Amino acid sequence: MSTPSRPIPPRAIVLLSGGLDSATTLAIARDAGFDCYCLSLDYGQRHRVELDAAARVAQSLGASAHRVLHLALSDFGGSALTDESIAVPVDGVQSGIPVTYVPARNTIMLSLALAWAEVLGSRDIYVGVNAVDYSGYPDCRPEYIAAFESMANLATKAGVEGAKLGIHAPLIKLSKADIIRRGKALGVDYGITVSCYQADEHGRACGVCDSCRLRREGFAAAGVDDPTPYAGRPGA
Amino acid sequence: MSTPSRPIPPRAIVLLSGGLDSATTLAIARDAGFDCYCLSLDYGQRHRVELDAAARVAQSLGASAHRVLHLALSDFGGSALTDESIAVPVDGVQSGIPVTYVPARNTIMLSLALAWAEVLGSRDIYVGVNAVDYSGYPDCRPEYIAAFESMANLATKAGVEGAKLGIHAPLIKLSKADIIRRGKALGVDYGITVSCYQADEHGRACGVCDSCRLRREGFAAAGVDDPTPYAGRPGA
Repeated sequence: MSTPSRPIPPRAIVLLSGGLDSATTLAIARDAGFDCYCLSLDYGQRHRVELDAAARVAQSLGASAHRVLHLALSDFGGSALTDESIAVPVDGVQSGIPVTYVPARNTIMLSLALAWAEVLGSRDIYVGVNAVDYSGYPDCRPEYIAAFESMANLATKAGVEGAKLGIHAPLIKLSKADIIRRGKALGVDYGITVSCYQADEHGRACGVCDSCRLRREGFAAAGVDDPTPYAGRPGA
Repeated sequence: MSTPSRPIPPRAIVLLSGGLDSATTLAIARDAGFDCYCLSLDYGQRHRVELDAAARVAQSLGASAHRVLHLALSDFGGSALTDESIAVPVDGVQSGIPVTYVPARNTIMLSLALAWAEVLGSRDIYVGVNAVDYSGYPDCRPEYIAAFESMANLATKAGVEGAKLGIHAPLIKLSKADIIRRGKALGVDYGITVSCYQADEHGRACGVCDSCRLRREGFAAAGVDDPTPYAGRPGA
């Protein structure tokens, strides 16, 4: 590589949820020449089949490692994704911040990625946040990613010693259709990913939650056949 | 309270390790009028008796809640505090960043505090970082705390909706002796705190690690009797 002090090949940490966006992000990181270390968080989310999907995606795209950290974020409550008492919405886009927003989730996941990056000597963290489809989530905005990067460079040994840590969010301004086209070009098998907020135990999508709706519309807009396994659609 | 939109009394999240600094920080937050919610992290640290100390301190200082989150940060390795293959130093201050530095620890703990703050409607997070004694730790510097605060205000629903989140580090520029004097004035019982990196199972300090040395020197400099229970000192 051009920077002499970097290991060859350079390592990147990739946050991998098992969904469509993070799978595409992993493919982009690999295409950029990184040796990819994938990190998933088991935070008590309802959609645990995502973690199985993450393992499949990491293997499918040749990641060097895949680690799942357990953290009982559900102890805090406050989100439909971790709190059984809040219903997952199925009625299209709401105004404001959705109830599926998990407080500080991206900040927590990026912080964990930062710790692993520091131990591995990696200066690059990839995250599949998207500001287009998830405009209601404060931690999916470009200004948030930039602020996290600034903080990370002050937080760490690498930053203090002059190495520049980069937080890469390659999907942040792409539409779902753009993301799907990009991933298809890079060989992503979207049939093994799970985006649904309430997939069944076999990983089959409900087809009606916000995440399913955005995903289905994305495949349609991209002109790509939707390989998602759908369960029955009781609420459709 | 003077700010009408705040809940009465306002809530603060206090990061509580069970050591001298965080106990003092809790006393300061309480003295500032906050209803205190204490958060400890069980991250696989060697000094687990700190967590027992944290519970004692939270109760002693009238905290409204104390929660311990479990996170296997030791999976990442890279620190003498979580990795059994790295020795805890007992030979005084080293130059540069100490091996007891845990990668991204403060960033991870502040991120978790941020999540809980958002769920509880709290706008104030207290952390006992100190830039004087721990000058080798990048995440104990004022510029780091300021950067985290900026990021936090972009990351969260509260920040987006115009509420200002504050990260308070009241000890950051104090000497250990100043901290001890401040805590004594606020009624902190330092005999129930544990600062030692390798305390025994009864919470007795080794007396020789860097943390013990700074603590002992602090009591001496403050002219306050040291109530720390010490075990034998094989390395002294």
